[in-house]
Amino acid sequence: MWTMPPTDSVLNMLSFIAVAAQSMTAALAAGRRSMDWAGVCMLGAITALGGGTIRDVLVGHYPLLWFKHPIYLAVAAAGAFATILLARLVVRLNLAFLVLDAIGLVVFTMAGCDVAWQVDASLPIVIVAGMITGCAGGVLRDILCNEVPLLFRSELYASVSVVTGLFYATGVGLHLNDQLWTVLTFAVGLTFRMLAIRYRWEMPKFVFNAEEE
Amino acid sequence: MWTMPPTDSVLNMLSFIAVAAQSMTAALAAGRRSMDWAGVCMLGAITALGGGTIRDVLVGHYPLLWFKHPIYLAVAAAGAFATILLARLVVRLNLAFLVLDAIGLVVFTMAGCDVAWQVDASLPIVIVAGMITGCAGGVLRDILCNEVPLLFRSELYASVSVVTGLFYATGVGLHLNDQLWTVLTFAVGLTFRMLAIRYRWEMPKFVFNAEEE
Amino acid sequence: MWTMPPTDSVLNMLSFIAVAAQSMTAALAAGRRSMDWAGVCMLGAITALGGGTIRDVLVGHYPLLWFKHPIYLAVAAAGAFATILLARLVVRLNLAFLVLDAIGLVVFTMAGCDVAWQVDASLPIVIVAGMITGCAGGVLRDILCNEVPLLFRSELYASVSVVTGLFYATGVGLHLNDQLWTVLTFAVGLTFRMLAIRYRWEMPKFVFNAEEE
Repeated sequence: MWTMPPTDSVLNMLSFIAVAAQSMTAALAAGRRSMDWAGVCMLGAITALGGGTIRDVLVGHYPLLWFKHPIYLAVAAAGAFATILLARLVVRLNLAFLVLDAIGLVVFTMAGCDVAWQVDASLPIVIVAGMITGCAGGVLRDILCNEVPLLFRSELYASVSVVTGLFYATGVGLHLNDQLWTVLTFAVGLTFRMLAIRYRWEMPKFVFNAEEE
Repeated sequence: MWTMPPTDSVLNMLSFIAVAAQSMTAALAAGRRSMDWAGVCMLGAITALGGGTIRDVLVGHYPLLWFKHPIYLAVAAAGAFATILLARLVVRLNLAFLVLDAIGLVVFTMAGCDVAWQVDASLPIVIVAGMITGCAGGVLRDILCNEVPLLFRSELYASVSVVTGLFYATGVGLHLNDQLWTVLTFAVGLTFRMLAIRYRWEMPKFVFNAEEE
Repeated sequence: MWTMPPTDSVLNMLSFIAVAAQSMTAALAAGRRSMDWAGVCMLGAITALGGGTIRDVLVGHYPLLWFKHPIYLAVAAAGAFATILLARLVVRLNLAFLVLDAIGLVVFTMAGCDVAWQVDASLPIVIVAGMITGCAGGVLRDILCNEVPLLFRSELYASVSVVTGLFYATGVGLHLNDQLWTVLTFAVGLTFRMLAIRYRWEMPKFVFNAEEE
């Protein structure tokens, strides 16, 4: 029932950390909206697994990961619940969480590209699949918290996902060593995201206020 | 075109009442947002059929119920439209509607478990499938009304669905009489929900306000 | 990689205009929320392609159009990006955009009906599939901008889609000349929508304020 997915690859092991981390940041958002404990766990699971779920539904890739391995649901719910108990600590470890969330972004992006390759997608779709996997969970979290998604207006996030995906695809296209390239892509993506947070790199904004009717 | 789904089982007959009831409560929410008549009917149909639709999409269970039996769409739209005409009456019958909505919750949960069994899902997924079927329609309603979903912060609702699903699964796992167990589960779930409303049973809330950046 | 979809039919050519137009109106909405450039392009693509995507997921019609032809993603993103550069102009051309958006509504509706026929849907489902294709993208846009969807409360829009779908289905049911009937339906739908905007035709509203608990 709680059979483990294969843990032979670096990516699979990192994905557990990523699921827990994204669930924990979602739990903090839930706390700001005074959700109840069940709501916190649900929001955590939706955020952590939502990106991959949307990607799988869009490419028709069944069964879903958490359908086959419900352990992911348990990890997400456990991460969210732990955050309720340790909220003060989680906040103090803010930096650690930004790193963990960035790990999630990069790991999910690579996993998304992998799935798209499995169904023979073209390059643009591989990049989009990576981006959806890395970013869509956070969009669901913000919708459920009744906010305009951070993804559309904050520091580089989708762009990190696109760059990570392109870098990953380059190596795979050149048939370079798989495990090594995965680690390299991971380092590049993570560094990019941390620099974006540190120096507040942002896209230019499109501000538009004219009355048009 | 409007062929009826099989009405041999208790569950199928109750599901019509459930669809109408959930659509009517959604129509009241639409009225609070001053939606137009078409919007009220659309919101009703999305709320009443959205939970089952999300479940079917997630488990890859095609064709969708309302695709095969459009009569469900008609029942949902009719329920919403009747609410426009009878809003005053509907409000006065508030208690009746809480009961009908609870019937929807319990019936949809059981129907969701049934579908998950059909695709050989493991127990955690059966429970989750029941919960999605019972609860996700209301989440869609609240998103479309631009509100933080009630599901995440109000009286026990998802918990009722989980308990209902577990109870239902126990009986089915023990190969007890199907029809009888369905009725028993129905009674247990309904009672639990009504008690939760009556005594305002709530989960503890996770309130978190610290500034973390 | 950027292979073009068949452009032999009127509908396919119009669909490019429709995708660009709906993406551009979404970009203006994004500007009102001060989204960044990447966010504007994402919102544009989600709005322009979201309706067809939801329809395909609901009827289980894979692969998705933009999965097979990523050129649609590029057109949508380009339309949104052009709007950033030309916002002042776009606003001054307000009327032109209302027409383009109406073209999108009518074209997407007909394309949605076509897909439903391909999977042997019954008439109510054909109409609903057309409506989802024509209208759901705008609902996604409004959800992501944190607003109650315009679809549920503004001038006739869903109704235009339903009328267009019914008119289209009538001709197809009577085996009339396909290309001719497509053009006719297009004219009827477009005229209806423009009249609805010009004379502010609206459905009656359901306004409901009673406290019910």
